[in-house]
Amino acid sequence: MATSHLATLIEALRRLPGVGVKSAQRMAFHLLQHDREGASRLAQALAAAVEHVRHCERCHTFSDTPLCDTCADPSRDARQLCVVETPADQAALERSGGYKGQYFVLMGRLSPLDGIGTRDLGVQALMRRAGDGQVQEVILALSFTAEGDVTAHVLSQALRAIQGPDGTPLQVTRLARGVPAGSELEYVDLSTIAHALVDRR
Amino acid sequence: MATSHLATLIEALRRLPGVGVKSAQRMAFHLLQHDREGASRLAQALAAAVEHVRHCERCHTFSDTPLCDTCADPSRDARQLCVVETPADQAALERSGGYKGQYFVLMGRLSPLDGIGTRDLGVQALMRRAGDGQVQEVILALSFTAEGDVTAHVLSQALRAIQGPDGTPLQVTRLARGVPAGSELEYVDLSTIAHALVDRR
Ligand SMILES: [Zn+2]
Ligand SMILES: [Zn+2]
Repeated sequence: MATSHLATLIEALRRLPGVGVKSAQRMAFHLLQHDREGASRLAQALAAAVEHVRHCERCHTFSDTPLCDTCADPSRDARQLCVVETPADQAALERSGGYKGQYFVLMGRLSPLDGIGTRDLGVQALMRRAGDGQVQEVILALSFTAEGDVTAHVLSQALRAIQGPDGTPLQVTRLARGVPAGSELEYVDLSTIAHALVDRR
Repeated sequence: MATSHLATLIEALRRLPGVGVKSAQRMAFHLLQHDREGASRLAQALAAAVEHVRHCERCHTFSDTPLCDTCADPSRDARQLCVVETPADQAALERSGGYKGQYFVLMGRLSPLDGIGTRDLGVQALMRRAGDGQVQEVILALSFTAEGDVTAHVLSQALRAIQGPDGTPLQVTRLARGVPAGSELEYVDLSTIAHALVDRR
């Protein structure tokens, strides 16, 4: 139990979200007893990710390159910009097959109680991105939770002040409330997401 | 989402026990967004543990050195040998303060359904350890589960054939059933463990 490398490993595993001391022990024992190759692979994957994964300059999602694959794809509709909270939410929208525009990934949502404000979410970067002269519509694909609603409200207020291509205001929409209230977007089934995209208002 | 280093990291995290694809995503996003230092630390801890953590030659627990601290401690009673399933179980016994002898850590328990037999648990090594001419009593501190009961039965059968210091058979005991049946030892409260140690039969 008291070997220092094992104790250090358990302590390091506890920094993972949702992992307490018992889970960390189990993980460490499992890796050392049954899956040292998995442990080495995880060590390498962590080091490589820390070294190489940065944020896309345009949409802020994780990317190995300055511009992510989606932003660099000329076949995507530059007139639509979909704002999501996380890369997992973006992936869920992509799997729904209902959207062909561009994205902006907030990497979180406004949460005054946790001290997450507009600066932490890169709202200024979103304003610049939405005002590029090509974007006509911004779709707020945020969770229908209290924090998601606050985020949507703040963003739509700010976005409506931005001018679109013809000097007209940006159109700001939100996913239709076909998405069950109180749920996290990434857990919603794909047909519901596709439906909510069509019904956006 | 589709950056290759991120995908590799998520895949590597999924090899941790109890971690599905959603948890792995959350862990990866959390580390890359909020705790890159924690990610680097975990990478180093994993690599160091894989390189340095071996098994103690005498008791089989994890150890950075050939002999673990407990086995190397001359103040421990060499006449008692306590057999546990995991280092976590050993730690629980130590915290109960009711035991001052030596240990043997099986690193598992017999589980025919999972293909874990006597060879996987190093039962031969336990027989050699118990027959060192100093051990008089072997205490089987195994979980009171079906698998723990099978393990205890098989081990006590084998251990009773081994001679103690005076040519007399080893005394083989098991923790008293003060431990709630069906429970994992590491989750039992300490006073119950201490009580069960006194009442061993
Ligand atoms: Zn991008
Ligand atoms: Zn030892």
